Amino acid sequence: MRRLLRRFFLGKPLPTKALREERLTNQQALAVFGSDALSSTAYATEEILLVLVGLGTLALSASLPISLAIAGLVVIVALSYREVVHAYPQGGGVYNVAKTNLGETPALLGASSLIIDYILTATVSIAAGVAALTSAFPELFPYRVLIGILGIVLIMWMNLRGARSSGQIFSYPTYFFIAIMLITIGYGFLRFLTGTLPTTPPPVESAEPLQAIGLFILLRAFSAGCTALTGLEAISNGVKAFKSPESVGAAKTMARLAALLIAFLLGITFLAYQMKIVPAQDETVVSQIARTIFDNSPIYYVFQIGTFLILFLAANTPYADFPRLAAMQARDGYWPKQFSNLGSKLVFSQGILALSAVSILLLIVSGGYVHALIPLYAVGVFLGFSLTQLGMIVHDRRMLRAKMDDRRQNVRRLIINSIGFAATTVVFFIVLYSKFFDGAFLILPMIALLFFAMRRVRRYYNNVDKELSISTTQFLNVPSRSILAVVLISKLDRRAVEGARVARGLNPASVCAFHVTFEKEEGDHVKDVWEVLFNDIPIEVRLDEFREITPTILDYFSSVERRWHGKIVAVVPMLVPQQPFREFLHNQTAKRIIEAIRRQSGSNVEIYEVPVRVETGEKV
Amino acid sequence: MRRLLRRFFLGKPLPTKALREERLTNQQALAVFGSDALSSTAYATEEILLVLVGLGTLALSASLPISLAIAGLVVIVALSYREVVHAYPQGGGVYNVAKTNLGETPALLGASSLIIDYILTATVSIAAGVAALTSAFPELFPYRVLIGILGIVLIMWMNLRGARSSGQIFSYPTYFFIAIMLITIGYGFLRFLTGTLPTTPPPVESAEPLQAIGLFILLRAFSAGCTALTGLEAISNGVKAFKSPESVGAAKTMARLAALLIAFLLGITFLAYQMKIVPAQDETVVSQIARTIFDNSPIYYVFQIGTFLILFLAANTPYADFPRLAAMQARDGYWPKQFSNLGSKLVFSQGILALSAVSILLLIVSGGYVHALIPLYAVGVFLGFSLTQLGMIVHDRRMLRAKMDDRRQNVRRLIINSIGFAATTVVFFIVLYSKFFDGAFLILPMIALLFFAMRRVRRYYNNVDKELSISTTQFLNVPSRSILAVVLISKLDRRAVEGARVARGLNPASVCAFHVTFEKEEGDHVKDVWEVLFNDIPIEVRLDEFREITPTILDYFSSVERRWHGKIVAVVPMLVPQQPFREFLHNQTAKRIIEAIRRQSGSNVEIYEVPVRVETGEKV
Repeated sequence: MRRLLRRFFLGKPLPTKALREERLTNQQALAVFGSDALSSTAYATEEILLVLVGLGTLALSASLPISLAIAGLVVIVALSYREVVHAYPQGGGVYNVAKTNLGETPALLGASSLIIDYILTATVSIAAGVAALTSAFPELFPYRVLIGILGIVLIMWMNLRGARSSGQIFSYPTYFFIAIMLITIGYGFLRFLTGTLPTTPPPVESAEPLQAIGLFILLRAFSAGCTALTGLEAISNGVKAFKSPESVGAAKTMARLAALLIAFLLGITFLAYQMKIVPAQDETVVSQIARTIFDNSPIYYVFQIGTFLILFLAANTPYADFPRLAAMQARDGYWPKQFSNLGSKLVFSQGILALSAVSILLLIVSGGYVHALIPLYAVGVFLGFSLTQLGMIVHDRRMLRAKMDDRRQNVRRLIINSIGFAATTVVFFIVLYSKFFDGAFLILPMIALLFFAMRRVRRYYNNVDKELSISTTQFLNVPSRSILAVVLISKLDRRAVEGARVARGLNPASVCAFHVTFEKEEGDHVKDVWEVLFNDIPIEVRLDEFREITPTILDYFSSVERRWHGKIVAVVPMLVPQQPFREFLHNQTAKRIIEAIRRQSGSNVEIYEVPVRVETGEKV
Repeated sequence: MRRLLRRFFLGKPLPTKALREERLTNQQALAVFGSDALSSTAYATEEILLVLVGLGTLALSASLPISLAIAGLVVIVALSYREVVHAYPQGGGVYNVAKTNLGETPALLGASSLIIDYILTATVSIAAGVAALTSAFPELFPYRVLIGILGIVLIMWMNLRGARSSGQIFSYPTYFFIAIMLITIGYGFLRFLTGTLPTTPPPVESAEPLQAIGLFILLRAFSAGCTALTGLEAISNGVKAFKSPESVGAAKTMARLAALLIAFLLGITFLAYQMKIVPAQDETVVSQIARTIFDNSPIYYVFQIGTFLILFLAANTPYADFPRLAAMQARDGYWPKQFSNLGSKLVFSQGILALSAVSILLLIVSGGYVHALIPLYAVGVFLGFSLTQLGMIVHDRRMLRAKMDDRRQNVRRLIINSIGFAATTVVFFIVLYSKFFDGAFLILPMIALLFFAMRRVRRYYNNVDKELSISTTQFLNVPSRSILAVVLISKLDRRAVEGARVARGLNPASVCAFHVTFEKEEGDHVKDVWEVLFNDIPIEVRLDEFREITPTILDYFSSVERRWHGKIVAVVPMLVPQQPFREFLHNQTAKRIIEAIRRQSGSNVEIYEVPVRVETGEKV
């Protein structure tokens, strides 16, 4: 049953050797890893204009040089990341680069900031997509949390089905967005060249003259626009998802993504300036541009659909990256081990599930109002950029010293990464400074928390491994000790009988039985009947006034441990129904008892579960 | 740790013999069981007026006779339920009455409709309370689902702490509401008598004359007002919560509750009529009354707070009733057994938790917009009323025939219950008919679903009990079979060594080891090392291409079962960390394997968990 459901939802399991075939083509990879970065062009220009408009509409002209500066930054970052992709074809981005070149602390810092960025991206993208949907259909507004959850479940499901199938399905909307964006910008440009570009009616111009644009405002506008760069690093984390040769494909895709980003950003900013568009409360800047250029024709609605889809799909990029990063860290011991398990469809299912769970939780807690989270993004992203480039500088210098590659190429690489480091570090501080009180200050403790948690998990696993390793084990020749078997009895039925039988079969030095009762009469009855059935097995019945069972049982076992110095085995009969879904009707108490014994520190009681099967499949 | 947290949140556990002391005084019981019924007076009049206003404002005068009819119905129902309380001091209301007198089917029907009513009451009350809060503080609106969840958690927490403490805490707001309601109605009446009762400015009167008020409209208005009766039956379900003599206290409390209900309903309807109040979009009728009577003075806000509190607290009545009903049904086998477990604070914790979980889910799914659910209430409630009275008629006739009591009293009782049955049955059909398309049609399949689920659970438990009973067991003298012990190995460390040691200690006829690998090299390595360490225990290593482990292991065991006809024991080493909260870092795979073996139908493999303790508590 269970297996059939699994097959139905996930499709056929894939053998490990199919891993090569589950890679993405460059086209698919651009869609999977690029949707996050591309989606930010839908609002980056607006973020810049929103800061500038505070100084009056004339100040909006500053948006052009600011966008050019951001485009330059995109070029620098993309060039530096091309080097990352070549040097670290195994992927992992900042985590891997920093781990190899800078040590544990920077690697975990970088990984923490990326992970927080992924979680925010997934949640905010879904919420933004739902917000676009509910502006079009206000009657859906009450159900937006539910719709958001369904959206997350959909993306989760596609990703659980395997990298290739999610790549196939999700590349259509991304290319749809790319196409409609290129058409819009191209057509707008054509109308500009032919002098027919319409302008929006100029709003009532404030009488005040243009104020001097202060440096702080410029920096704020610049760092607001830097949201356009979020997601640019996604490719470097998932190089292994590309078809072989991985680095070549990844570098090529990175270049294409950067070119599209720059074209979209500059195109939109240019058109917005020429059309004298001012950010409005009730309509986005890109929507104003498209609506005006296409004179409200149906193609405008096609554009809106494209924007909606890309905002929604930006949530897919974290699904491509986060599970890979978590798996890499789990192999190094920084995450619970199950995150490194490759699922039946060759994806890291645990990471996909965890990301979905956290996003759903955030969505419920915030009630779907997550716009406040947007400024938080950029801080973590630029911290990651900066650490990556610093790691690459160390890497390049080592290569230079080792005289591994062509010297000229090495020097060129060192220069690129140094410029990248300088630029992204400066921008990191600008973003941190100008957005600190908008909420960026919240990011730092979150990064710290994750950082310390990862480090503790690693230390802990290390110690456990040391303790478990056979070399330190002196147990090999310990003689086996004499066994005391304790049968736990809940009710005098076949379970008790089978428990007694199994206990006797353990070849124990001694057998006894234990029963907890809440009412004296019931306990006396059990004792009487037991003594008739099994006169060779002594039974102890305890009255538990507080009806908590587990403390009574733990208490009993500690008193037994004081008296018996051999091995103690708790024999627990468990009812096994024919149909697994009936489990919830049985064994709730037995499971609690087993958990409690297992968790009791200092105790060495072993647990023997005896399955007692029932064949009943009742007919109504 | 765990136990400390428990003590902190729940307080000291109570011994079973404290059950008597955990009873409620009549005052507390009126608050706990009455809050649902009392809260409905906050909107019952409005529901009547909303139906009538469709015919023009003159039709509103029909509200007075309608309210009188409802008040009469309250008297009838309260009188009949006094008899229920006396005849069934063990509580359980319709379920118990119908089970004893009418048989299984009516009992389950009544219980199902009550349970659905409880779930709706809990969810809708919380949502209504939150709606009142967010109208006062619109900035909280985005967080209303979260606030609702916190509200449910608060009520859940108080109820988990024990009946008495929730009775103590929750009676203050209820009596506060009763007081402010009495003050408002009394002061309004005083102003009416002194001729100073203000009227609201009459709205623009439609020119049309009063239309003939059709029968259907009258019935609709009547059944809309019948929401005032919801919750009236609550006391009969929880008689056991009263201090001894239970029936006397319960009957007295029922009479007081009915008196308050009638006073509030008639008082509000009278004042609304005299003050010419018309239901408005943006303000409730009771709010209009209080605001006008108190001329917007601060006491009006006190009134609003009282209304808010009672709406919120109406959710507490289901918490008093549902767990008791579920426990009673669980003891009869209709619910999973754990619902009958009396928790450490002498409440049925499982029922409290289940009710909270379902309510939270409903709140999330509906996004907090649950006003549409209100018409669904009354159908289930009146079905319960009607079945109870029918059961009582059968009971009374039996008593009459048996000549148990005073004959005159018996006849009086039979008459009361017959009138009750006739009235509630008629009202049930009126409500069903007039609200059918408002959503009442949804209630019937839900009742049917619950009904069949309960019946199936009972049949299933019956069959299992029969199968497990010792009388049918022929196993007592079966000789114990020879054991094959299979050690499951995940990694070659102390766990494997202890597993082998334990397996040898079982005195088995044969021992072997099994390991699943994902990569051939790893498997070969394990095999080589194992053969050096334990040359007497043969090992089998299987390569699992699909990385699913459990199918491979199940497959292995079925092949073993074909070859070995004795007993098979799977020895599973489990890592036990020093601190229980570290569990999630370990054993995820081992637990999955155990579950799978346990659930494999047709297999008889027994499971032996070997705890391998690690002492590590790492320092950072």
